[in-house]
Amino acid sequence: MTQLTLTALPNIPLVMRDDDLAMIILRGLHDARIELQDGDVLVLAQKIVSKSEGRMVRLRDVTPSAQATELSKQSNKDVRFCQVVLWDTREVLRVRDGLIIVETKHGWVCANAGIDRSNVAPHDEEEWVLRLPEDADRSARELRERLRTLTSRDIGIVINDTHGRAWRNGAIGVAIGVAGLPAVEDLRGKSDLFGYQLQVTTIGLADQIASAASLVQGQADEGRPIVHVRGVPKSQRDGSAHEIVRTKEQDLFR
Amino acid sequence: MTQLTLTALPNIPLVMRDDDLAMIILRGLHDARIELQDGDVLVLAQKIVSKSEGRMVRLRDVTPSAQATELSKQSNKDVRFCQVVLWDTREVLRVRDGLIIVETKHGWVCANAGIDRSNVAPHDEEEWVLRLPEDADRSARELRERLRTLTSRDIGIVINDTHGRAWRNGAIGVAIGVAGLPAVEDLRGKSDLFGYQLQVTTIGLADQIASAASLVQGQADEGRPIVHVRGVPKSQRDGSAHEIVRTKEQDLFR
Repeated sequence: MTQLTLTALPNIPLVMRDDDLAMIILRGLHDARIELQDGDVLVLAQKIVSKSEGRMVRLRDVTPSAQATELSKQSNKDVRFCQVVLWDTREVLRVRDGLIIVETKHGWVCANAGIDRSNVAPHDEEEWVLRLPEDADRSARELRERLRTLTSRDIGIVINDTHGRAWRNGAIGVAIGVAGLPAVEDLRGKSDLFGYQLQVTTIGLADQIASAASLVQGQADEGRPIVHVRGVPKSQRDGSAHEIVRTKEQDLFR
Repeated sequence: MTQLTLTALPNIPLVMRDDDLAMIILRGLHDARIELQDGDVLVLAQKIVSKSEGRMVRLRDVTPSAQATELSKQSNKDVRFCQVVLWDTREVLRVRDGLIIVETKHGWVCANAGIDRSNVAPHDEEEWVLRLPEDADRSARELRERLRTLTSRDIGIVINDTHGRAWRNGAIGVAIGVAGLPAVEDLRGKSDLFGYQLQVTTIGLADQIASAASLVQGQADEGRPIVHVRGVPKSQRDGSAHEIVRTKEQDLFR
């Protein structure tokens, strides 16, 4: 029987800079009484990966450029926040009151270059924001290697974030870092039940896993950032989230 | 422990016009040894809903208009196929060689108005295509009511399809019909762990369920079109896929 089971690992502590995510995962799996198997996938919320990599920025320390000042005027967002957004931006695509949509340097089209103000730090005098990992594919690869060393298991890693979309209301979980599985599955040449060529030719496997995990991660707190997934159809190919990036030249909608 | 389990129901027959999907679901649940509970969600591939509603069209019976002839020239697609696409189209958005992207009369932005040539009928002299349900929200509502009558259970229904997207490679499962759960969750006003307002304010709940189910449905055959989902966070609100439709006026990317 084809079954997929997603389990949010319990008792995950607040993650700090330089925390060892592999050890946190192993403790969470232990508490959930899950024994890792080859082919399992672990989904990590981008925030805990960014935090462990020290991607927090204190707004007080940011000196805004003229471009940030202009972006702040157009968007009515904090000028120092706008500066951090620009650090990670390749191209600003749309700006409205309260809204900045960019193409990030990684190639993602999303609000605020993925910079997040919520769930970064406790309320205090300081304001902090959190940037995406510098290279989330690398983060995923390194975590996969470390877990292989510790457990001898061959697993997949997906680092997910929550993005808005064109055409459809409601943000959804998407993959921004992938290791150990294809991010995009190529079905070209496969046939349907009746021998016709399939019309849909590529499937966003990692994005679908990211959305599924997002259902159990929840949004309003950071208590369930790591999700164990069992039952993802086995694939022989390794991959990276870079496969998901549609370049500007290939994209009919930007 | 927060857990989500998706099970593709076994032994689902090829669905024909006027087949009783509720009875097919109940047999599938029985074979999977799943007892339906309040709050469970059933995801049905659009194709079996369309087929049961008789949305097949024989291309031989289609008389193309001048507009279909023009669309066929631009896209290099069968002129009768183009005519069926136009029946369900509000606005043609992009046309390239081999590609037609439209806004459907339901409000979905997708290729070919969701018209599908694969998995419709066995190879023979005739060519058939399949249109989306006329009103997939109504299809979902009626199925939910019928299952409530048969089982006394209060469940959610999602009818899913596979759509390409702007900005990202790989098609993913999306919801085109919803009943018994919110399609879009509104988190406005909710706070994070530290008391900050959340930045992401609406979540595409039904789309995420649709993508998760797509992982177990597979693509290359029609053998697993119905997925039972247990563990979706309980919501008090009924909803419809219409919540997902972003109108042209609200959309910055079309």
